[in-house]
Amino acid sequence: MLARTLIERKRDNGRITKSEWRTLMQQYASGEVPDYQMAALAMAIFFNGLDREEIGSLTDAMLRSGASLDLSQLRVARVDKHSTGGVGDKVSLVLAPLVASLGVAVPMMSGRGLGHTGGTLDKLESIPGFRTDLTLDVATKLIERVGCALIGQTNEIAPADRRLYALRDATATVESIPLISASIMSKKLAEGLTGLVLDVKRGSGAFLPELDRGLALAQTMIDLGTDYGCPVVALLTAMDRPLGRACGNALEVEESIMALRGEGPPDLMTVTYALGAEMLLMGGVVADRDDARRRMEVAISSGKAARKFEEIIEAQGGNPAVVEDPSLLPQASECEIFFAPRDGVVAQVEPRAIGRGITLLGGGRSRVEDTVNPAVGFVITARPGDIVHAGEPLATVFASDRNGVDGGLAVLRGAIRIGDEAEPPLPLVSHRVTEAGVELYDS
Amino acid sequence: MLARTLIERKRDNGRITKSEWRTLMQQYASGEVPDYQMAALAMAIFFNGLDREEIGSLTDAMLRSGASLDLSQLRVARVDKHSTGGVGDKVSLVLAPLVASLGVAVPMMSGRGLGHTGGTLDKLESIPGFRTDLTLDVATKLIERVGCALIGQTNEIAPADRRLYALRDATATVESIPLISASIMSKKLAEGLTGLVLDVKRGSGAFLPELDRGLALAQTMIDLGTDYGCPVVALLTAMDRPLGRACGNALEVEESIMALRGEGPPDLMTVTYALGAEMLLMGGVVADRDDARRRMEVAISSGKAARKFEEIIEAQGGNPAVVEDPSLLPQASECEIFFAPRDGVVAQVEPRAIGRGITLLGGGRSRVEDTVNPAVGFVITARPGDIVHAGEPLATVFASDRNGVDGGLAVLRGAIRIGDEAEPPLPLVSHRVTEAGVELYDS
Repeated sequence: MLARTLIERKRDNGRITKSEWRTLMQQYASGEVPDYQMAALAMAIFFNGLDREEIGSLTDAMLRSGASLDLSQLRVARVDKHSTGGVGDKVSLVLAPLVASLGVAVPMMSGRGLGHTGGTLDKLESIPGFRTDLTLDVATKLIERVGCALIGQTNEIAPADRRLYALRDATATVESIPLISASIMSKKLAEGLTGLVLDVKRGSGAFLPELDRGLALAQTMIDLGTDYGCPVVALLTAMDRPLGRACGNALEVEESIMALRGEGPPDLMTVTYALGAEMLLMGGVVADRDDARRRMEVAISSGKAARKFEEIIEAQGGNPAVVEDPSLLPQASECEIFFAPRDGVVAQVEPRAIGRGITLLGGGRSRVEDTVNPAVGFVITARPGDIVHAGEPLATVFASDRNGVDGGLAVLRGAIRIGDEAEPPLPLVSHRVTEAGVELYDS
Repeated sequence: MLARTLIERKRDNGRITKSEWRTLMQQYASGEVPDYQMAALAMAIFFNGLDREEIGSLTDAMLRSGASLDLSQLRVARVDKHSTGGVGDKVSLVLAPLVASLGVAVPMMSGRGLGHTGGTLDKLESIPGFRTDLTLDVATKLIERVGCALIGQTNEIAPADRRLYALRDATATVESIPLISASIMSKKLAEGLTGLVLDVKRGSGAFLPELDRGLALAQTMIDLGTDYGCPVVALLTAMDRPLGRACGNALEVEESIMALRGEGPPDLMTVTYALGAEMLLMGGVVADRDDARRRMEVAISSGKAARKFEEIIEAQGGNPAVVEDPSLLPQASECEIFFAPRDGVVAQVEPRAIGRGITLLGGGRSRVEDTVNPAVGFVITARPGDIVHAGEPLATVFASDRNGVDGGLAVLRGAIRIGDEAEPPLPLVSHRVTEAGVELYDS
């Protein structure tokens, strides 16, 4: 009866109290409240929203539906980064070892790819032997010993969120800022963080393409963090084109390794350093952003960051030799270069088309239960604004067979638009949002 | 994938096409589309509505998910009455035999009580032996032979509607005019009608209390009927107090029998005659409303209507002797009179409180799977506007034990409000709605 009453109240734009949220989410996690009632509630929330207190109560209720990492005995700061997701977004793979190598612990819980965006877990699992299904006990020990654990949302953590997240995907209720915020934060609070940096993507390939929606999400998350004692800072970053060159699981791991070895593409490094500086500032281990930047550069040039990645890979059962020799990663059996079909300027590299192309090649998921082929994807060297000539190589398709190659080339033909002029792309990092408000990012 | 796409489109206020509705409802009836997706869609429809064509397409899709009565070989008109439900609303039990006795066939499909309103099926089943679970074949034969069949929605008829109706109740998506209209009409069209009279209740005890919402439902249903070749006429009738005196299954059957024998309470007869006149006019067997009224009075005074009820009861396996001797109906083991607590005027007899009181006594359902005690309920002789004196009998509780009596008396104390003055009650029949528009009812 409670669920029906609360659906009706939210439908009529009423409020749900903290104790009602707690009971409801307990009943949902236990199966007492069926999916169809939660689906109706989620749609009512899509239309009528939740206020700040309700979002906090829902977050708390989902957090309490499961267990948390207890890192309170750890002397060092624990800071995680969360991205709203994009194409070619391998920042976590570079950032986690880089920041951990500088003395801030990184307990990072990631997801799998779904739809057009990839997932950090799928990328990590392309490293032979790498396991992300660690228990909270094991993850706690790794964070103590290595300063980092890269894990998935286990059954222990926020099971009510886990169930609701899958349901929202099937019921077109994902794009609700209160539900997104509560979902992210219920998992982040379970990591026992002292701070969180949020990478909110904007542009055509982003989950919330419009700037104002991205800013609203950032502000909602910051309020939530304030209310629950976990400071949050957000950067708005560009997802009107893929980030870096590699798009596809193993290809992105390889690019991340190159980045940790000082050979990353400039756009990836700009975003990584910007987010890394916020993490190090939150961790209290640097004086300012310039200091943070210098220390990250040294960590990379000295090999310290790459060694930290080896350490993490080894600790999670993977083969650390991939850092020295990325050819140990899964390799696609077929590859083919895509050439510019005409003279002109690259007007667009459409990230959604590329993301869907990866799924087409077998490297992404259209359903949660799909398995992924880690080796396939694209490496796109053409950037929006580049002047190109007919016959010039712009990208490479990596596929498991000839059909895949042909499909991949067709995807690139659609995604890389050559025109006579190009709109300027979005700035890589455009806004910084804190409790104090929104400021333009001064890079 | 279709379901998710359609939910998203309706959420964003888009349209769903006829062929999409058909596929969706087929998939829903077969179980391929899960309840949680339909729940999200129902809530999106609650907020964004359906246009006239979509309501028609949904109705058609639900109708086609099952079988229909084939009464096309029948020479006589087939007219049914549908009420949006109320407390003490036993009109169907009087009207079906009355109209059938005058040569218009009445294929009547009814529902069970849920929440504060009763259901015709529960009332009929309080007649010993009466069966409402007839197959369509048997119902067709009864309509041919007796001119009437009083049945429930079998698994054969509009199974997609059946499943959706139960789901809407659990997900607070009942109060949506497009969904209500499509649900009613998908069943009515399956009855093979040549016309339908709609009794739209208004006032505090109605499903849609506000006049404008009732009129909107009437107009939507009339449009639907027009589009599908089944003319619909609607009367708006009062449900700011119970209809008649008896409230409770067997008690209402008894009052219906008394009405068919010429001893019905005036308010019940007014509403019955008003609806009956519309049915007879639609059936083409009377010249005008006055003619209809005269013929109905004669059918009652001559005993013809009561004999038709005996015939129907016998045809459906019940004991027809109840018409001669209503004491053969189930009797409550305990009853007690409720006396006026003070001098004054009856300001209100709150129908929702009485409806919930019947459920409290065991005579209604809070869940679909509950069974009902047919004998319990109330007989309320006090009417709003009556001047009463302390100690004067106002009502009687019929219960299965002393606890029930005490609970029932408490219900009456809350429901029958004695004050110093009374607002005038709503007119019993206030508006008549046809394809031509809304007119005030001229009684």
